[in-house]
Amino acid sequence: MAIERRTIVYDGPGGPFEGVAVSDGSWDAPRPAVMIVPNVLGAKEQDNLVGERLAALGYAAFVADVFGQGKRTTRESPDPAVYMNELNADRPLLRDRLLASVAAMKALPQADGTRTAAIGYCFGGKAVIDLARAGGDVLGVVAFHGIFDAPGYDYPTPIAPKLLICHGWEDPLAPPEAVTALAAELTAGGADWQLLGFGHAGHGFTDATMARSTRPGFGYDAAADRRSWAAMRAFLGELFEAG
Amino acid sequence: MAIERRTIVYDGPGGPFEGVAVSDGSWDAPRPAVMIVPNVLGAKEQDNLVGERLAALGYAAFVADVFGQGKRTTRESPDPAVYMNELNADRPLLRDRLLASVAAMKALPQADGTRTAAIGYCFGGKAVIDLARAGGDVLGVVAFHGIFDAPGYDYPTPIAPKLLICHGWEDPLAPPEAVTALAAELTAGGADWQLLGFGHAGHGFTDATMARSTRPGFGYDAAADRRSWAAMRAFLGELFEAG
Repeated sequence: MAIERRTIVYDGPGGPFEGVAVSDGSWDAPRPAVMIVPNVLGAKEQDNLVGERLAALGYAAFVADVFGQGKRTTRESPDPAVYMNELNADRPLLRDRLLASVAAMKALPQADGTRTAAIGYCFGGKAVIDLARAGGDVLGVVAFHGIFDAPGYDYPTPIAPKLLICHGWEDPLAPPEAVTALAAELTAGGADWQLLGFGHAGHGFTDATMARSTRPGFGYDAAADRRSWAAMRAFLGELFEAG
Repeated sequence: MAIERRTIVYDGPGGPFEGVAVSDGSWDAPRPAVMIVPNVLGAKEQDNLVGERLAALGYAAFVADVFGQGKRTTRESPDPAVYMNELNADRPLLRDRLLASVAAMKALPQADGTRTAAIGYCFGGKAVIDLARAGGDVLGVVAFHGIFDAPGYDYPTPIAPKLLICHGWEDPLAPPEAVTALAAELTAGGADWQLLGFGHAGHGFTDATMARSTRPGFGYDAAADRRSWAAMRAFLGELFEAG
């Protein structure tokens, strides 16, 4: 195995954007490709490491950038959510940047453009649900502790990408009534959807940097992290086998 | 592989009961054991076949009988639910029969009594949730299109067995508010629980005999059947590895 990272600068509305492609130099043919949409902070080392785990599974990984080159924050930034808030206020723009990111992933020489998926964390989880709603040209999406509010624009149905929603039941950003509303929306949209809910887990359950969070309903949960990753693997396996 | 079935007659309140043990004659050591709690009709060939699938995975399977020897119905019976209704009206009795069935499973020579689980379908799904609530001495339970209403008696907490609830979101016997109520109950009970919900699937989604059901919200769903079985396998794997 020879895992490699490459910085990919790509165009789109409000761009340029800067993503990271992760692949294995020993591959001799294009691989099913998985896009990673980062959380509120934007693309960072944590996302690159997810890309490496995906590449180790044999997938061409692509860490997307929906904020714009250089637009990143940390938990210590004066306003960590500044770039996220811009997109939450303009969901059509988020959609268009997601579609541009998918196009960038598909253009990677390591990617089999006919077998692609997207996963996302927190805000990125919301984003990949939007990508599915938008009829993004991927076979499926996996949201980890995403946010479920509908985007406020009409979208084409039936929703073509399959969805796996991995959800911490104690997440205050997505309470049970939001789960029920999302389920109803996706069903009305004709989507092939699954919801994997974890008792006691909260927002950010995959995020080890939130391990010592003292905010109720927020924080890392080792069991939910492990189980959601396993569920994602099974989901991607089914997706690319059938695809 | 040499899959074998044996009829097991065992005692319990209101018994005798008649179960079926399924194992592989080539095993040379006790195996993790999985009890199957049948649906409204009671133990039947369909359950024995599930036992064979479990035995093929290396598990000592045991089809439980909570109705009593000879007490079985078919879809064509004048009242298919006659025995189920008796137990729905007496949940403590259901609990005690489940505990007797677990004891019978643990007594099987093929069973490793320290590594056991229970799965159940429809009424049997409700039953295995009750088994977990009752602090049944199993490591975990899996409910397939179960019913979620609380049993109306006090039970010890924290709930020790882990739970995987596989649920068809369109199941009219367990609407979203029942899901939310079960989640709240299991969380309050301190259980390690997971919910896997399937969009568009209804009650009986694993049951190929319901394939041509025309009752809305009822019927077989091939994708949910396949995915819930895979999720059960992963759940049992984690359970017995850790156990």
